[in-house]
Amino acid sequence: VVIRDAPIRQQSLREHNLGLVLRRVAGSATPPSRADVAASTGLTKATVSSLVEELVAGQLVAELDPTRRSGAGRPATGLVLRTDAAAGLGLEINVDYLAACVVDLAGTVRHRERQRGDQRGRPPAEVIASVSVLADRALAAAARAGLTPAGAAMAVAGIMHGERLVRLGPNLGWRETEMPETIAGLPLRVDNEANLAALGELHAPGGADRNFLYISGEIGVGAGIVLDGRLFRGSHGWSGELGHVTVDPAGLPCRCGSRGCLEQYAGQEAILRAAGQNADARDGDEVARILALANGADPAMLAALRDAGTALGVAVAGMVNMLDVGTVILGNSYAPLSPWLIDEVEREVRERVITADWSPVSVRPSALAAEATVVGAAGSVVLEILENPTGWLSSAIP
Amino acid sequence: VVIRDAPIRQQSLREHNLGLVLRRVAGSATPPSRADVAASTGLTKATVSSLVEELVAGQLVAELDPTRRSGAGRPATGLVLRTDAAAGLGLEINVDYLAACVVDLAGTVRHRERQRGDQRGRPPAEVIASVSVLADRALAAAARAGLTPAGAAMAVAGIMHGERLVRLGPNLGWRETEMPETIAGLPLRVDNEANLAALGELHAPGGADRNFLYISGEIGVGAGIVLDGRLFRGSHGWSGELGHVTVDPAGLPCRCGSRGCLEQYAGQEAILRAAGQNADARDGDEVARILALANGADPAMLAALRDAGTALGVAVAGMVNMLDVGTVILGNSYAPLSPWLIDEVEREVRERVITADWSPVSVRPSALAAEATVVGAAGSVVLEILENPTGWLSSAIP
Repeated sequence: VVIRDAPIRQQSLREHNLGLVLRRVAGSATPPSRADVAASTGLTKATVSSLVEELVAGQLVAELDPTRRSGAGRPATGLVLRTDAAAGLGLEINVDYLAACVVDLAGTVRHRERQRGDQRGRPPAEVIASVSVLADRALAAAARAGLTPAGAAMAVAGIMHGERLVRLGPNLGWRETEMPETIAGLPLRVDNEANLAALGELHAPGGADRNFLYISGEIGVGAGIVLDGRLFRGSHGWSGELGHVTVDPAGLPCRCGSRGCLEQYAGQEAILRAAGQNADARDGDEVARILALANGADPAMLAALRDAGTALGVAVAGMVNMLDVGTVILGNSYAPLSPWLIDEVEREVRERVITADWSPVSVRPSALAAEATVVGAAGSVVLEILENPTGWLSSAIP
Repeated sequence: VVIRDAPIRQQSLREHNLGLVLRRVAGSATPPSRADVAASTGLTKATVSSLVEELVAGQLVAELDPTRRSGAGRPATGLVLRTDAAAGLGLEINVDYLAACVVDLAGTVRHRERQRGDQRGRPPAEVIASVSVLADRALAAAARAGLTPAGAAMAVAGIMHGERLVRLGPNLGWRETEMPETIAGLPLRVDNEANLAALGELHAPGGADRNFLYISGEIGVGAGIVLDGRLFRGSHGWSGELGHVTVDPAGLPCRCGSRGCLEQYAGQEAILRAAGQNADARDGDEVARILALANGADPAMLAALRDAGTALGVAVAGMVNMLDVGTVILGNSYAPLSPWLIDEVEREVRERVITADWSPVSVRPSALAAEATVVGAAGSVVLEILENPTGWLSSAIP
């Protein structure tokens, strides 16, 4: 029996309940009082007060002064997250851009920078040096806003080994690339871009389902899998390789060595190729070129997008049959392309998912689009604080 | 934020730790002492002693007498699970048989009965009456052994809605079939057969990976998905519909309304049809007929099995690409057929899973074969006791 086998002692009980109170404050539509938190958590008022004191001292939570009136209405009172202290730094290395962003404890983006440019073929050390410059500028911007990032998370389009080694970034041309332990002085965790984008969607305003697939369409195609409200990474952190799921066993050869992989039908280069366009330019302008032709109603591009949507729908339907997720989010460059893809994806899902008649699957474009990844990366740092505030409380108080 | 949002108070702390101690006793190779349990859980000896007293009083745990010697060797001492009190009743309604079994707290099968016979076309009420007779006999056998099942779990080959309604049992011919709340006087929970078989594998002696797919091959093809050591059921409990995953988008029509479903290539009837045999006999002898022809080296059957293995491998490879599971178990009738299937499944997985070079995926037949389902059903009742002994402790002491 392999479940729940950690003991809970007084110390971890307090850690658990600190996080619980913090998340209640984070999740409330209006600032809750201590009594509200006690009522909704089942903790005693004395316990809540003691936990709140610790969160206030650690600059995670502030208590609005009930005597101060905010304009006309009722007095603003209760507990709120502090948005001027703890933060997360997100970084992204993509095939055709680098990005950085800072989000505060409430998930608001407080700084963002995106630097376009083809990263393919550049030595990894150079790319890391470039992204470090963005990280330094982000930290300076954070400091001006009074924010202290607790750590950095970096998204890389590739297959990871642990949190440090990029085993394969097929579109970047990376192999066995070791990433630094820190960046701009902050501890760095590296993760797959679709995973971090899925986290971004999970915690986006309005939120998502507790079970969903986030599909990242770029040169490659990847997926972030959220099950029971948590990112599922697999045995080795290699989950979500949707681009290499077979949609036609005897189909087109793929650079991975297999045949008929989804990426050969629904990746950006595959779409350009199917539309009779130059697919080898690798200019980082693939989406823009596809969009321009689609907006111009180029018949070959419209047909290529329909075929891509059909292939994507077949692969997605298989995953919904297996995983029974209620929502599929078309993310990254699939978001702007979704007007030309979504009908086909929905049709294949409707026809191929055996339970679709009882409970239709929602297919929708990402609200965050290409920004989901870097925002999700920064948000994953904030999420760690919300999950376990003890780390922040014991180390980071300025 | 949607995680870990249950408060932990003193009462639930004790419940958690009762389960923790019970599972340590269950998971130990040799009977641990109270001090061993304290050391391995991090609980104080006083806490462990108090918890052990409650488990002993509730007949879940016994303490071996250190003065009594068991033959020559060292004195037998320490805490053991009691195998003469709490138990689980498992039931199974399959297309061509009914089954019942009783397992004790240690997971040992103490009673089993299997009644062959085609259940297709029989009114569900008649089938339930037949399985009730098996349940009564199982309870009588349990009572003779001093065992008290805490509840019953029933496996049905179909798609469930909650724990009571079989929405669709396509091969049984069931639709919207309501199942009884109790059977033989015990509370009854109904679940998909592949899910319960996967639980059987998870808790089989020797255990399985923390991430694996259990594939159930019958007339239909289903999967039980174990992720991070827990059964994943999906948003509605409909996960694991591997039989309706597309392996050829323009392929054979399926009774589900889609085309190219795996079931049309790797289900028993599909294999018989592909081998030029009568696939419509529905005599419950499908596996036996396939096995006889395969053992006789019938060329058409050998080719049909190779094609079935290839189709199964394509579908399984897609799931491994997405879920990064380390083990695939060929279960139910795929277990006896695995000598003719496994090479093709392994080949497709090796060629199509992008990470297979770094970490080979283990494909193996189920050790429990067709019995996995009913044993897993009974085991799921025992598992509930191990996860939360409070229910048993507060209700079931004779």
